[in-house]
Amino acid sequence: MPTYTLAQVAEHKTTASCWVIIRNKVYDVTDFLFDHPGGPQVILDFGGQDATAAYVPIHPSDALDKNIAPEKHLGELDGASRRELSKAKNDKVKSKDELRVEVAVKSRPLLSRIINVQDMEETAKKLLPYKAMAYYASAADDSITHIENARAFSRFFFHPRVMRAVSGCDTSTTMLGHKTSIPVYISGSALARLGHPLGEINLTRGAYKTGIIQMVSTNASLSYGQIASARGSPDQPIFFQLYKHKNDETAAKRIREVEALGYKAIFLTVDALVPSNRELDTRAPHYLEDFEKGVNPQHNSQAKEGETEILGTAGGLIINNDVDMTWERTIPWIRGTTKLPIVIKGIQCVADAVLAAEAGCEGIVLSNHGGRQLDYSLPPVELLYKVRKERPDVFSKTEVYIDGGIRRGTDVLKALCLGAKMVGLGRAFLYAQSAYGEAGVVHLARILQREIKFGMESLGVRSIDQLVPEMVERVDWQPAVGARL
Amino acid sequence: MPTYTLAQVAEHKTTASCWVIIRNKVYDVTDFLFDHPGGPQVILDFGGQDATAAYVPIHPSDALDKNIAPEKHLGELDGASRRELSKAKNDKVKSKDELRVEVAVKSRPLLSRIINVQDMEETAKKLLPYKAMAYYASAADDSITHIENARAFSRFFFHPRVMRAVSGCDTSTTMLGHKTSIPVYISGSALARLGHPLGEINLTRGAYKTGIIQMVSTNASLSYGQIASARGSPDQPIFFQLYKHKNDETAAKRIREVEALGYKAIFLTVDALVPSNRELDTRAPHYLEDFEKGVNPQHNSQAKEGETEILGTAGGLIINNDVDMTWERTIPWIRGTTKLPIVIKGIQCVADAVLAAEAGCEGIVLSNHGGRQLDYSLPPVELLYKVRKERPDVFSKTEVYIDGGIRRGTDVLKALCLGAKMVGLGRAFLYAQSAYGEAGVVHLARILQREIKFGMESLGVRSIDQLVPEMVERVDWQPAVGARL
Amino acid sequence: MPTYTLAQVAEHKTTASCWVIIRNKVYDVTDFLFDHPGGPQVILDFGGQDATAAYVPIHPSDALDKNIAPEKHLGELDGASRRELSKAKNDKVKSKDELRVEVAVKSRPLLSRIINVQDMEETAKKLLPYKAMAYYASAADDSITHIENARAFSRFFFHPRVMRAVSGCDTSTTMLGHKTSIPVYISGSALARLGHPLGEINLTRGAYKTGIIQMVSTNASLSYGQIASARGSPDQPIFFQLYKHKNDETAAKRIREVEALGYKAIFLTVDALVPSNRELDTRAPHYLEDFEKGVNPQHNSQAKEGETEILGTAGGLIINNDVDMTWERTIPWIRGTTKLPIVIKGIQCVADAVLAAEAGCEGIVLSNHGGRQLDYSLPPVELLYKVRKERPDVFSKTEVYIDGGIRRGTDVLKALCLGAKMVGLGRAFLYAQSAYGEAGVVHLARILQREIKFGMESLGVRSIDQLVPEMVERVDWQPAVGARL
Amino acid sequence: MPTYTLAQVAEHKTTASCWVIIRNKVYDVTDFLFDHPGGPQVILDFGGQDATAAYVPIHPSDALDKNIAPEKHLGELDGASRRELSKAKNDKVKSKDELRVEVAVKSRPLLSRIINVQDMEETAKKLLPYKAMAYYASAADDSITHIENARAFSRFFFHPRVMRAVSGCDTSTTMLGHKTSIPVYISGSALARLGHPLGEINLTRGAYKTGIIQMVSTNASLSYGQIASARGSPDQPIFFQLYKHKNDETAAKRIREVEALGYKAIFLTVDALVPSNRELDTRAPHYLEDFEKGVNPQHNSQAKEGETEILGTAGGLIINNDVDMTWERTIPWIRGTTKLPIVIKGIQCVADAVLAAEAGCEGIVLSNHGGRQLDYSLPPVELLYKVRKERPDVFSKTEVYIDGGIRRGTDVLKALCLGAKMVGLGRAFLYAQSAYGEAGVVHLARILQREIKFGMESLGVRSIDQLVPEMVERVDWQPAVGARL
Repeated sequence: MPTYTLAQVAEHKTTASCWVIIRNKVYDVTDFLFDHPGGPQVILDFGGQDATAAYVPIHPSDALDKNIAPEKHLGELDGASRRELSKAKNDKVKSKDELRVEVAVKSRPLLSRIINVQDMEETAKKLLPYKAMAYYASAADDSITHIENARAFSRFFFHPRVMRAVSGCDTSTTMLGHKTSIPVYISGSALARLGHPLGEINLTRGAYKTGIIQMVSTNASLSYGQIASARGSPDQPIFFQLYKHKNDETAAKRIREVEALGYKAIFLTVDALVPSNRELDTRAPHYLEDFEKGVNPQHNSQAKEGETEILGTAGGLIINNDVDMTWERTIPWIRGTTKLPIVIKGIQCVADAVLAAEAGCEGIVLSNHGGRQLDYSLPPVELLYKVRKERPDVFSKTEVYIDGGIRRGTDVLKALCLGAKMVGLGRAFLYAQSAYGEAGVVHLARILQREIKFGMESLGVRSIDQLVPEMVERVDWQPAVGARL
Repeated sequence: MPTYTLAQVAEHKTTASCWVIIRNKVYDVTDFLFDHPGGPQVILDFGGQDATAAYVPIHPSDALDKNIAPEKHLGELDGASRRELSKAKNDKVKSKDELRVEVAVKSRPLLSRIINVQDMEETAKKLLPYKAMAYYASAADDSITHIENARAFSRFFFHPRVMRAVSGCDTSTTMLGHKTSIPVYISGSALARLGHPLGEINLTRGAYKTGIIQMVSTNASLSYGQIASARGSPDQPIFFQLYKHKNDETAAKRIREVEALGYKAIFLTVDALVPSNRELDTRAPHYLEDFEKGVNPQHNSQAKEGETEILGTAGGLIINNDVDMTWERTIPWIRGTTKLPIVIKGIQCVADAVLAAEAGCEGIVLSNHGGRQLDYSLPPVELLYKVRKERPDVFSKTEVYIDGGIRRGTDVLKALCLGAKMVGLGRAFLYAQSAYGEAGVVHLARILQREIKFGMESLGVRSIDQLVPEMVERVDWQPAVGARL
Repeated sequence: MPTYTLAQVAEHKTTASCWVIIRNKVYDVTDFLFDHPGGPQVILDFGGQDATAAYVPIHPSDALDKNIAPEKHLGELDGASRRELSKAKNDKVKSKDELRVEVAVKSRPLLSRIINVQDMEETAKKLLPYKAMAYYASAADDSITHIENARAFSRFFFHPRVMRAVSGCDTSTTMLGHKTSIPVYISGSALARLGHPLGEINLTRGAYKTGIIQMVSTNASLSYGQIASARGSPDQPIFFQLYKHKNDETAAKRIREVEALGYKAIFLTVDALVPSNRELDTRAPHYLEDFEKGVNPQHNSQAKEGETEILGTAGGLIINNDVDMTWERTIPWIRGTTKLPIVIKGIQCVADAVLAAEAGCEGIVLSNHGGRQLDYSLPPVELLYKVRKERPDVFSKTEVYIDGGIRRGTDVLKALCLGAKMVGLGRAFLYAQSAYGEAGVVHLARILQREIKFGMESLGVRSIDQLVPEMVERVDWQPAVGARL
Repeated sequence: MPTYTLAQVAEHKTTASCWVIIRNKVYDVTDFLFDHPGGPQVILDFGGQDATAAYVPIHPSDALDKNIAPEKHLGELDGASRRELSKAKNDKVKSKDELRVEVAVKSRPLLSRIINVQDMEETAKKLLPYKAMAYYASAADDSITHIENARAFSRFFFHPRVMRAVSGCDTSTTMLGHKTSIPVYISGSALARLGHPLGEINLTRGAYKTGIIQMVSTNASLSYGQIASARGSPDQPIFFQLYKHKNDETAAKRIREVEALGYKAIFLTVDALVPSNRELDTRAPHYLEDFEKGVNPQHNSQAKEGETEILGTAGGLIINNDVDMTWERTIPWIRGTTKLPIVIKGIQCVADAVLAAEAGCEGIVLSNHGGRQLDYSLPPVELLYKVRKERPDVFSKTEVYIDGGIRRGTDVLKALCLGAKMVGLGRAFLYAQSAYGEAGVVHLARILQREIKFGMESLGVRSIDQLVPEMVERVDWQPAVGARL
């Protein structure tokens, strides 16, 4: 295998010829520049240089093999160059944010002090690098939908029943025929390794230990195979969240790959076809720049104004999606590609819930992508309530799931009373694995199980199927902000 | 009676053999470990040691006699051991929280400066040991129901009538046939001695002086007999709040005991069968630990993670309840056990109000346990309003009481206009006796009487029976937070 | 005239014999003790002493003549005693609150900087002695009704009409046949001299200059005659707000007195028969005591607990009212006593508005006493809206006024669109005269006139009678708190 | 041309003879005093003096020629006087506010950091002189309508459609037949030069570069001709916002002038006939006076009280308007004056929308003048919703526009779904040109285009005409204040 010096690599930094170094290997990425989901500029910024630190945490290990033709794997750095890189890495002064994180990690609370979902979120936000926090936490525009997703649950109150036998209360149910210990699944979300070196594997292992189901994102930071291999047994069900590539063949290849790996369902995501406006994420580089400088967050207007619009971490992930999917074309195509059950993720109005059910989809997720795409999309629990009122037949035609804004066992139970079969949490599990790895995931699932079981007993039910619409009421007032006394 | 040394006792600290010292007496509690309502670990933590300080404030004086067989009352400490314990107690450095309370007690306001219910609560919270405050004040999950219980009253406005003769306005009424000076009773709540050495006796004596009725909790910190003996006269009515033990015979024994002691009614509690999530209570040990250390409330993650989940003071009180009670089985059983009137406490929906009335119960309490059990249970005044609208026949079949969120005489009057016969306050009286003992209880009742009388005169009524539904309106807006100008 | 020494007076300080000194004169008030509206203790606190400073600001000049029989006007202090009192007065150290007011008065803003009603209130509150501020500003219980009175207006929006000729827009109208320059009157409120030495006279003169009408309170701090004499001309209309004494003859005497003095209407107040709970007022003595001491507002609990409940300034004013008035008895009685038009002030529900109209009253005031009596009485503009919807015939049978919560010309116009003939402001004029005397009253009236005229032009109307219900809409949302940008 | 000395000019400072100096020229403005829109006092304050600094930023360059007869252009200052003025100007100590602005300008953020409309507003407010900020930002009374204009949008949520082909999504549409790149126009607002020396020209050039349409205010700070000349091509459409002078001939002259200059439509403003109460603007001189003094904002009450009521910058602009316009008289008159399409700006109720449509107007603007005139005028998007529900025929009879409260692309799309053809922004573009000149205007338009395009794709539409009422729902709750996470 040929070797290169840093100087040699440094000459290739344009669209005409662009090389990068990753883990001491040299790649010619010229042909890939315009196929990169994040656009060419993201790569060109590292043209002719070592890109390892930026690349590794957000790409699965098989990404280079999948995307860069073998002949473009040019070779390795020579020894002197390796030593030079290594020295540079050691000499690098830690950023203020890195130092902040180091301090935060030292005072991380004992896991037993985390007693609810919000504790987990708050703890993780302190421990995460700012950019990772910004990517995980950000939502669209003014975060109205993000905030209302959670707040909507607070308008639903219970009609608990008393004097009913509840001993032996059982929280288990099924999702697409697979057993789950509680009616909660881990919703697919990108880039778990931003928060923890083991990334998605923490979720897989935690799911196994607690008997719940994980959905894996197209944008996972580990390869689909690595995640599948982390399962506790071959029976452990995992699902796949699909961003359909605009090229049907590329898309089909991805589906066949995960089917072969043992994934049990395809969750086709239809609410995130184009990059959205997530301002916390967009502003993160500005924030860090100012934080390092220790100066006023505003620049001297004489400074050179850059041309490129900065899109944040999120920007690069939603590219090359098929923006022309239709019920007529896409559902038959996917049926022809796989035998796996198909679930539409991102249903945001009653009419589309009906269309999905009529199209024979095995399930739908009432979801607005956690408030990260179109602001002022209805909160899922409000949509669920509308489906219940206007088209209750949908519940008998397809499994209905919701995600977005769930923080408590009571939220889960409200959704189930209204007809949801399962409830997904995304960010919460990301935060749990970021802060405590696999143990955090297990702990979070157990908190939810405790809350769900208590709620069922208090409602007077012994099993999930006894949760009925008569047990919830949408009140006509808005509770004040809760205090966790 | 045999005597023991501290060293001898210290050898018995496991489930195989567990001894404890209480008031210089030695008990073998091995057989009782798993019957303890709070679970065995709570006792094992004191295995082989003196448990007096932890035990006394939260157990009635007859608890040892009732629960520990006579032959397990082993004997006494010898003189040297007593002196050693006594010296250890004297040498014990006061905790920061104890020192804080000492300062607070010195600046306790004159009772005459307490002019409303909220003054009493705020004052008591400053005077109480943190753990007691946390137990009294805590509510479920995010305290939504706790907060909304009170806030719901603010959506009910009056239609006061003018030009009606109101001289000689009389606030008295009856509850289960017993006369009461105002339509307010002291609702049963556990562990009054956490707040004041005389505990429930303050309530009994204050109730006597002001002509109101006390309900005594199954979890009272004095024995049912001690409380009954504190009555001002044998005619003073007291009621009993019952947690039904899962063992029918144990439960029946308890009912027969209080009937013999002269209690006049059984309030069967049906909304608190299993321990709930009260986070202020749960976090109290963490809070105090950090407060003593004077350090950051977060631990170094290297610290040993404990295995036991800490449940707070509340955890131990709701155990061994009968979680399989039903209308069909339990009501006839209790009728067969006692001649006392039966009231169901913890009705949370219209349907169950109807069932209770049809089951022939003499009364029902619309209550969600002060927001301490299932969060998002409807505020009782909202439920009362629903019963009034949907099933007004309930009011003619059974006496309807409510508790939860009452802070003002106007709250009481709103409930009575809607059909409630009486209104219960729990925490408020706990706070009053904690801060000022019996005088506080008397003062609180007089504040309420003054407010109720003024409200009746201002509504244009001379007697309780003139309060009618037409005098209240549920408005469609939410008042802003009130200011006590 | 006999003279007395301080020592002689000092011997008479009990209910058996009680003398007081007022303006160097000696009165035997023994017989009057239990007729005093504020109760005997208020006088006994000054028994045998000089009561001038406490007495003068809150009693009209004819009060001694009216209430103390001539033979009880015992005589005067001798010269030495007068000098002693005078010296004591001079030597008296100013209280902290007096010093605070002195500073505040020095930085009083120019009147031209007061550009709206709220400016006036905020300015006056800084300038007033604490006790006066507390009496003026206080409201019942938690001030819900006080706050909602104003907030309710914010739910009414306009349907302004454009392309209508509005030149020569005229804001004048009539009240009980008397011309007024704007549809706003000065509502009766007690004790104007707490805020300014000229007291109610400021209101009378300001009303004259701006062509508006003043209602005088039974509890005015000047005599009814002094106020009548301050009129700019004999034609200037003034109205009388009546608290009916429980003794019919005493009440009739008062009515005949004001009729003879030229008052033009009787506003019988029916919403304030008994003293209410105004906590700011009640706590004022505590506040001042602590402020002077410069210590923690909490007392050592060892301090002697006083027996008397302190009621604040308000307490003494609502005593001896007739609490047994009825439509059947009282209206005919008052008709038999006077020829003046009768207006019922304090109507708080639709049913009573109808009864008053049917009883032939010339007017009604939808009022809850500015939120100072029963908390949770409906905001008057909400009640007005209900009358408009449920019983619009009332508007054709009697003149309907409202008071409570008016802050802007737009508030006035909303009330007029809904059917009110006039709108009253009480506190606002008290604040204006307190801060700037007569000039403040004139300025306030002109601010309102400017706002009303602008509002009429913007609604497309030229005269008051063109304001119609179609021009307002009650919206189903609650505006956020306004910002005065 | 004759020359004058400062001393000579200084003699003419009364209504009898009033001269002023502007750009070293001397004008006799005696005859014009009472024709001045802001009233005579504004000029008299500069009588006999140099008025250049106050005059130039708020008057178009042709104002002197239009308003002062040629013979009153008396001549020029002599050389010595010019030097004296110039020296005085140089010697003038900068005000605190000028110094504050100088600092603020130095830390102006890079334009690329401005990522939404609110960023632009916040940035501009820091950079603007206080008086200019106060004039731009101020709203009527308590700003209820100003605040609710924006807040109302938050009650409208989307029903996004998925699985619809959206590639090639096109944001362009037409307004009165003129092409526009996005459904947003620049609404006319006065005095752009308060914020930037190039004033309205920044808007004209920015509009050209981004393909949007500008409406020019009657009170523009540049002449209508200067603005027309700044167009990028003769085809660039510009519209004219008309305040109709009470004198028909003066009004007609103005209309004919702009028609001749190539303006393409007349927007007759009917909601701002008389000066309103804008308190931020009114208080600006007080604020600055206190800021300079560095003292307490309150004056010693001994200070001389001025007689003149200060009206702020806004006061002078709304004078001499025709307050007697009617549908019957004014529409035919304007039709007889011009061939341009007529749009009524300031429709505030459904009834007037219908009247305008029936009167044959080519368009209407549902507007309340940005909340600057009558407080409690309905938010335009609420009015739009009412028109849609009650009189949908209006949309087929005339083009309907709205302005007021638009901050996001989602706001624009909600209005279009409900039937609006275009949406206007006023303040936002003023802020943009104030902070960054033409580049700011371009940047703002591009932000809106990005947000609108993303919103359309997310709603599942490819073109503006696919936006339909079914895509929005007015929810019955009020979202919490948004956080821009």
